[in-house]
Amino acid sequence: MSTFETLTGRVNDVLCAVNALQWDARVMMPPGGAETRGQQIATLKGLARQMILAPEMGDAAEAALEAATTETDHRAAQAVLEARAYHARLPASLLQAQAESAAIANAAWVEARARSDFAIFRPHLERSVALARQQAEALGYDGHPYDPMVDLFEPGETAASLSALFDELRAGLRPILDAALGRPAPRRDFLFRDFPVAEQQRFCHEIAGAMGFDFDRGRLDTTVHPFEISQTRNDVRITSRWTPGYLPMAIFGSLHETGHGLYELGVDPGLTRSVHATDLRGLYAVGGTSFGMHESQSRLIENHVGRSPAFWARHFGRLRDTFPEQLGDVTLEDWLAAINCAQPGFIRIEADELTYDLHIMLRVRIEMALMDGSLEVAEVPGVWAEAMAQDLGLKVPDDARGCLQDVHWSHNYFGSFPTYTIGNLTAARLFAQLQQDPAIATGLAQGDYAPLRSALQAQVWRHGRARSRRELLETAAPEIGETEAYLAHLHDRFAA
Amino acid sequence: MSTFETLTGRVNDVLCAVNALQWDARVMMPPGGAETRGQQIATLKGLARQMILAPEMGDAAEAALEAATTETDHRAAQAVLEARAYHARLPASLLQAQAESAAIANAAWVEARARSDFAIFRPHLERSVALARQQAEALGYDGHPYDPMVDLFEPGETAASLSALFDELRAGLRPILDAALGRPAPRRDFLFRDFPVAEQQRFCHEIAGAMGFDFDRGRLDTTVHPFEISQTRNDVRITSRWTPGYLPMAIFGSLHETGHGLYELGVDPGLTRSVHATDLRGLYAVGGTSFGMHESQSRLIENHVGRSPAFWARHFGRLRDTFPEQLGDVTLEDWLAAINCAQPGFIRIEADELTYDLHIMLRVRIEMALMDGSLEVAEVPGVWAEAMAQDLGLKVPDDARGCLQDVHWSHNYFGSFPTYTIGNLTAARLFAQLQQDPAIATGLAQGDYAPLRSALQAQVWRHGRARSRRELLETAAPEIGETEAYLAHLHDRFAA
Repeated sequence: MSTFETLTGRVNDVLCAVNALQWDARVMMPPGGAETRGQQIATLKGLARQMILAPEMGDAAEAALEAATTETDHRAAQAVLEARAYHARLPASLLQAQAESAAIANAAWVEARARSDFAIFRPHLERSVALARQQAEALGYDGHPYDPMVDLFEPGETAASLSALFDELRAGLRPILDAALGRPAPRRDFLFRDFPVAEQQRFCHEIAGAMGFDFDRGRLDTTVHPFEISQTRNDVRITSRWTPGYLPMAIFGSLHETGHGLYELGVDPGLTRSVHATDLRGLYAVGGTSFGMHESQSRLIENHVGRSPAFWARHFGRLRDTFPEQLGDVTLEDWLAAINCAQPGFIRIEADELTYDLHIMLRVRIEMALMDGSLEVAEVPGVWAEAMAQDLGLKVPDDARGCLQDVHWSHNYFGSFPTYTIGNLTAARLFAQLQQDPAIATGLAQGDYAPLRSALQAQVWRHGRARSRRELLETAAPEIGETEAYLAHLHDRFAA
Repeated sequence: MSTFETLTGRVNDVLCAVNALQWDARVMMPPGGAETRGQQIATLKGLARQMILAPEMGDAAEAALEAATTETDHRAAQAVLEARAYHARLPASLLQAQAESAAIANAAWVEARARSDFAIFRPHLERSVALARQQAEALGYDGHPYDPMVDLFEPGETAASLSALFDELRAGLRPILDAALGRPAPRRDFLFRDFPVAEQQRFCHEIAGAMGFDFDRGRLDTTVHPFEISQTRNDVRITSRWTPGYLPMAIFGSLHETGHGLYELGVDPGLTRSVHATDLRGLYAVGGTSFGMHESQSRLIENHVGRSPAFWARHFGRLRDTFPEQLGDVTLEDWLAAINCAQPGFIRIEADELTYDLHIMLRVRIEMALMDGSLEVAEVPGVWAEAMAQDLGLKVPDDARGCLQDVHWSHNYFGSFPTYTIGNLTAARLFAQLQQDPAIATGLAQGDYAPLRSALQAQVWRHGRARSRRELLETAAPEIGETEAYLAHLHDRFAA
């Protein structure tokens, strides 16, 4: 093993340990552990940063760059040099200030949301925005101060590219939404019956397994806010929640995280301890090439596969057997109509497929304007209410159901929201292309997901971070426009 | 916070992360994670070692030594300087060789035990012994090469001190054992009935809680080989196993680990991130001052409290309510006789309280002789068989039930066995003294364990590693001889 591989492998080990600590904190840790867990994670991240910035890492990366004979090796070395430049630009004092302010801001946000009072959170959000702008200045940018923030989550995208993309999407969504909302609402009463947790868990483990989630290389556990995290590419942890009075939460949450999990499980084993399996800038060990590509895999499994008639033609019988009393009076058609029904609402994480992106685009507009100073923090609730009225015809009743609903800003996270919509767009492009393969289409109809997995593995999963999202799409779906497949899908599902 | 506190706090964070990874590996990790988990742990331990050996740590410890105004501060600085000297003496190449040989030796041991064939393990044990002797030479010693090995687990003890102690114990055990074996065997059939796992778990959670295990600061989970490990002093994880066909395994295993857990939970909160909470030589974050003192707390709860008539007078009703069919024909007296019955057997971990130490003393004699070269590895099975015949009157049927039964040597662990017996002796000394306090004695009789816990916390737990086992005993049980209380306890329980 070369020095370069040894050194980056060690950074990867530390970041995988961080992931293990984070998974534990959210799934297993008793309350007493909270006091020191944050400190443990901060110490390990600090060590990883030191290891990346160490002169020996620079020498090893330079040597690896020179010795590289393949494009992949070249990129690995390049990625380390870029990570070094990134960390060198970010002063430790800023990271420290962000970590300290995040702890306080998050506590203020929890209180503000509970009391539905934006004034409590406002000074903290002002501080978060100020720190984010300092971060953007430290990192540098050519166009917009939002650019270096987005780049952390979705390399290559900018305020300009996103604005153009989202304008196109918004224009296409409008007529579909109008058509969908003109339809009579289907029966949905049965979704809210009493579904015992143990049976929900059994069914969700079953469908995760049916989709190909490998329980010898991963786990599905219980949490409050579902997520996926990898300890390594052979130990992928997904989580779900079980809401006794609302069945779709567990099912589609589990399918969503299964999609994330399959991506991680599918990374080339050779990349397991390599720099291609780790985001060295975010100090976050993620197997996927970007947050948007990761989200595309979860949305593909959740929405394109998991909400399709073909999927439920295979699995609805089993679901009804699991809940004979609750679903005894429900047909397959009732079920499909209920789980694919558009209903504007205030809350992003409860939004249906059709209205979800409008929630995202609102947040992205606000983030961009906060970053370039064209919007004051004090103006956020007003802008929010205006957009909800215009986009969804809803009057925001209070801040808790308005601009205080998301945790992201309290964690100094600016620039991650666009990746949800990029995930939706990317999922649709990939799925439209994959469906043209007769083996995949036949498999989906018959409940055999192996052909789909093989194609995703070959075209997306195995590459880890070795290729960018745009590069992967150029090969996987070269002839499908950025919004084309997604709008066609939404039209078919909600307005056809 | 001083530089010394910051630097040692960081080492503590890394070692607590190691513990989190180890807990996860043994309780939660899917098989796929095994491949890289060892590497992650090795990387973190290597970083901790680097941090201890870094010049800045030396400067900080020297400064802290000079600035120390209390005995406790003085010892903390001294402990870091000793750890630096220890790690400086141990060459990284030896650690590497031990880590590599342990992986291979452990696999060979698993196979050897499965086939009950010592010849398969023999070359690996020879290599382990050779490496242990190299380690002893590197660390240095005045008396016996076993001394520096024991010192890692039980600071201050030596081959000479242990030999004298164990000779005294052996002489005292013999007449008690003879008397016990002359008695008629009680009924034990009901211990082997079918006890559903879920009910075992519920009962064991209950008694752990009754003993004072704080589930807001810890967890009790399922594993194959029960153990206790701390993520921090406010997040203590204990484990147990549930054997459907043998009830005592779960109950006394859970009480044993509860004792370990109480010790960790009771460390002074101020020591949580301090050097007094971490063994910097073993790179193992342990709250107790030695392995023997740790074992004393588990044995005190398991045997002195947990097998006592007073304990079961309080809890037997609840146990019989939990298993009404299985224990319907069993009286409190039947139960007490069955769980306190001496029966010589081949397997250490299944041994009763009375014969347990004979298993330990056999291993310690062999370890000492292997270390000083007076015994060849090839002679181990013969020595083993001879001792089992002489001590327990048993003819060892095969190597699997003989010298291949323990995992320790395959992990290059030499010197830890004595701490089991030291734990038994220490538990008895502490308990004999504590029982003289009327509040504690009354509490034990009434099922109120708070007075016992308060005393143990004040005399033992809160000090973490800030005082040695011998120092703690000088205060807690100054007038009780090393074997006196233990032999009296065994006599009362088995031969009175």
